[in-house]
Amino acid sequence: MSDAQMYLVEVEKKLVQAVSDYTNEERLAESMHYSIAAGGKRIRPLLLLSTVLLFQETIPSAAVDTAAALEMIHTYSLIHDDLPAMDDDDLRRGKPTNHKVFGEDMAILAGDALLTLAFQVVAMADLDATSLVELIRLLAETAGPKGMVAGQVADMRAEKRQVDQIELQAIHERKTGELIRFALLAGGIIGKAPKEDYVALDRLARKIGLAFQIRDDVLDVISTTAELGKTAHRDEVLEKSTYPKLLGLNEAKAALAQELQDATAILTLLAQKGYTITPLQRIIEQLALKEEA
Amino acid sequence: MSDAQMYLVEVEKKLVQAVSDYTNEERLAESMHYSIAAGGKRIRPLLLLSTVLLFQETIPSAAVDTAAALEMIHTYSLIHDDLPAMDDDDLRRGKPTNHKVFGEDMAILAGDALLTLAFQVVAMADLDATSLVELIRLLAETAGPKGMVAGQVADMRAEKRQVDQIELQAIHERKTGELIRFALLAGGIIGKAPKEDYVALDRLARKIGLAFQIRDDVLDVISTTAELGKTAHRDEVLEKSTYPKLLGLNEAKAALAQELQDATAILTLLAQKGYTITPLQRIIEQLALKEEA
Repeated sequence: MSDAQMYLVEVEKKLVQAVSDYTNEERLAESMHYSIAAGGKRIRPLLLLSTVLLFQETIPSAAVDTAAALEMIHTYSLIHDDLPAMDDDDLRRGKPTNHKVFGEDMAILAGDALLTLAFQVVAMADLDATSLVELIRLLAETAGPKGMVAGQVADMRAEKRQVDQIELQAIHERKTGELIRFALLAGGIIGKAPKEDYVALDRLARKIGLAFQIRDDVLDVISTTAELGKTAHRDEVLEKSTYPKLLGLNEAKAALAQELQDATAILTLLAQKGYTITPLQRIIEQLALKEEA
Repeated sequence: MSDAQMYLVEVEKKLVQAVSDYTNEERLAESMHYSIAAGGKRIRPLLLLSTVLLFQETIPSAAVDTAAALEMIHTYSLIHDDLPAMDDDDLRRGKPTNHKVFGEDMAILAGDALLTLAFQVVAMADLDATSLVELIRLLAETAGPKGMVAGQVADMRAEKRQVDQIELQAIHERKTGELIRFALLAGGIIGKAPKEDYVALDRLARKIGLAFQIRDDVLDVISTTAELGKTAHRDEVLEKSTYPKLLGLNEAKAALAQELQDATAILTLLAQKGYTITPLQRIIEQLALKEEA
């Protein structure tokens, strides 16, 4: 178990504790806890913590708190994305979606609550005020109407029509990529990375983000619902543009491998500067597709 | 026109500019602009600006920005509150509600975007980092799952059953009161109020918040849809517990007058400390019911 994964336990604790401490309506807390506990892979927190470990040997509590906030934002986006008015999905991480259990009204409010709470958790983190303001600005920018929310809108617009690779990439860079960019840049801010390293972090984040999305698209095609923990072949039902649809399955797999190779090359350069890349390297390795039996 | 009202023009500009500058999806921006421009009374920004004027002669840009952020949060809450899964209302401020024009999916995302953008606008305001962090923490706390969102949940829970006055007050203190509390406390933070004045600001906010809600309930009973700019007698249709229903119409009017009298008493004490209370006083006067013809 890498150091970053060890600290994920702290992130889980923070997620549960923040919802319990800063919520005063029982049913709302249940709804928030339900989606928080629904067993995500915590890839975004892991990326944030692993980026801090590039620059520092230990993880400060502010990194744990910010990682938890990031996962709250991701969780809220899934709750809202699954709503009947949006993707209308009944299954998420192998369990009924939030609105299926708590009703649409509560799911909307639980999403709103997690989004708001994320900013509270960062604002209360133990870090100098200047860095906190920078983190909050960056979180809002990457999650908001130029970032993730814009990506959702673009994704919606792209349904039921053919888009080209450039447009598809512009959708994913915002829908998935921006929060991953937050993970790495926030890791830099909290890890007190030298200014000149942010360009590398930004490039690395874009490679990982794209790899992440292509992988998701490919898995939707080649997996079963049981394997995914969410409804498989959903993209086809929603007539979504995906990498396998646009490039063919084999080309999509090759594109994924290329992004991971580029990411590894950036990591190698960071290693040459004396930074500890092992935790990030491990995540990138796990993004590769397992060889099919 | 009071100074505070004059600065509302700046708040309007900031609202339009922030949505334009920090959104990169046209239809999303239209949806956000639509609800922002739908002609609210801007009572929350006005309260914030008027509170700054207690302590300072001029309004710094950070007050304008924070007032705009506050109105974004209020606007998002109305968009989500009007959704079919929530109050299912077709009319807001005399115009079709956001989802009626842009669809439910876009209305959900426009709300999410405004909520997120609010934090970005505060984080980018021209103020010392320590005060910004304090403002952001307070905004998240008052708007989130212990504040406004909790109030929405409690309000939902209270539909179709009788609640007593204590429970009704606990709903409104969060649903409406907490953002008003933010307005006054933020005005104190930006106006650099002495520490000992926050208790008075807090008490004043609670009086104004309660007055505001009782007034809203009373107007729902005694007004027409044309006068309100939203569907009248909606509370009765939704079987909501309201002050007129609980206390009778005349007692509710008397309760409103009492809250306003208490608020005026607090203001008088603040005036004795040499603070400029005229702008806040004017708002409180406007919360009184006009004599019926």
